[in-house]
Amino acid sequence: MQILLTNDDSIYAEGLAVLWSALSEIAEVTVVAPDRERSATGHGITVDQPLRAERVSLFSGAAWAVNGTPADCVKLGVNCLLKDKPDVVVAGINRGPNLGIDVLYSGTVSGALEGLILGIPAIAVSVADYANPDYRYAAYFTKKLVPRILETDFCTDTLLNVNVPSLPAEEIRGVRITRLGNRKYLNSFEVRKDPRGKLYYWLGGDVIDLDDDPDTDVAAIREKMVSITPIHIDLTNYRAIRALEKLLPDLEGEVLFSKEN
Amino acid sequence: MQILLTNDDSIYAEGLAVLWSALSEIAEVTVVAPDRERSATGHGITVDQPLRAERVSLFSGAAWAVNGTPADCVKLGVNCLLKDKPDVVVAGINRGPNLGIDVLYSGTVSGALEGLILGIPAIAVSVADYANPDYRYAAYFTKKLVPRILETDFCTDTLLNVNVPSLPAEEIRGVRITRLGNRKYLNSFEVRKDPRGKLYYWLGGDVIDLDDDPDTDVAAIREKMVSITPIHIDLTNYRAIRALEKLLPDLEGEVLFSKEN
Repeated sequence: MQILLTNDDSIYAEGLAVLWSALSEIAEVTVVAPDRERSATGHGITVDQPLRAERVSLFSGAAWAVNGTPADCVKLGVNCLLKDKPDVVVAGINRGPNLGIDVLYSGTVSGALEGLILGIPAIAVSVADYANPDYRYAAYFTKKLVPRILETDFCTDTLLNVNVPSLPAEEIRGVRITRLGNRKYLNSFEVRKDPRGKLYYWLGGDVIDLDDDPDTDVAAIREKMVSITPIHIDLTNYRAIRALEKLLPDLEGEVLFSKEN
Repeated sequence: MQILLTNDDSIYAEGLAVLWSALSEIAEVTVVAPDRERSATGHGITVDQPLRAERVSLFSGAAWAVNGTPADCVKLGVNCLLKDKPDVVVAGINRGPNLGIDVLYSGTVSGALEGLILGIPAIAVSVADYANPDYRYAAYFTKKLVPRILETDFCTDTLLNVNVPSLPAEEIRGVRITRLGNRKYLNSFEVRKDPRGKLYYWLGGDVIDLDDDPDTDVAAIREKMVSITPIHIDLTNYRAIRALEKLLPDLEGEVLFSKEN
């Protein structure tokens, strides 16, 4: 099995190294990861400047550091750096959870998403602690999960967003398949003055979870369970289509109106 | 009515100016937009450095240029720059279409998405031509659309992604409510050598549309119609949840197994 491994905390992050060790037991792992931290880059790609890929000797397999986002890393890895198309793209282990709305901002999820866009089954893995993360169980679990998803038939249009409690194995209570919960950031910008008296704004990160349903990723982590959420690419809100179609006669009227002018 | 207007082509882009003029006829418009082009930034936000907001006198209303992404602009605008919460966030007019998978990469859509996350109805508007875009009908249509979506009840969890043909009004055939189509980028990186002989990679942009269904955004634009696609935030693939739950007994076994070790 061939695995392309990426992340958004940079190629030098501990979570990547721990996951590399675990996955190397079951597959040939090639690392293509950002040369510096690229958290909260969303699904950004680099189009206005060239990308560089430096071979690095951090791992005993092949590894490249790229001056781009996680999505860039996967795109460049699959198209230019790897000899063969990988069987799986794995992104992580992220330092800190990626729950609910986080997935829209997450570079880790974006790395996996790019794999899926390229037609490759993909998993994003995060450990639910920023301060003092314990990556060991997350790495172990991912090693067990990867071969199994390859046997399923949904992995061609769905990635798995996995969040693991930062706990030793004996304290983890189980595994739950979840939906994305509803969390909200307080968006508290700190407004400061620079040494020359000009204002600047720095985004804080306080979060509140609005959703107590046990079937959410947020609840699973709170209950010390591994959360697996299936994520797909199609953002269409099909239920809204019919409601919108009711507006059509009026909108079509605008088109006609404009022609009369 | 208060409108927050942003884009990803920069505050100096023609599409923004044309849309400002149209929307100013129906609302008080505040511009908060990137100080340089921020295309393909996805839903990235800036967390690792401070943001600056410069008052600019491009428009006769209030306008700020921000050294961040479209999502940064909306977050900062709503939280720090505008006196009142706006009634609508409008992003655009983007130079070039945002169809199908484009919405995952699009800074324009991301600006609207951030409005929605903050609880504000939002519209992203793009004109379907890069080379020689005609923004006039897109601006006119948006001016007519904004008041109507405020009367609907889906605009609290759904943004509208609007693509408009780059044509004069009399050549536009109508309006269609669509789903996101299936388009694929060829991901042709050009591999070049720099003056010092080192390789670099630059992403090309050739796209193929794989989906001929008339209900897609891609088809609507091809048929010279305005496309409106409802987009929501919840990326959960609910249909995959049940399939995944079949894996649970085995995965739970892994948890137990690990405890024995």
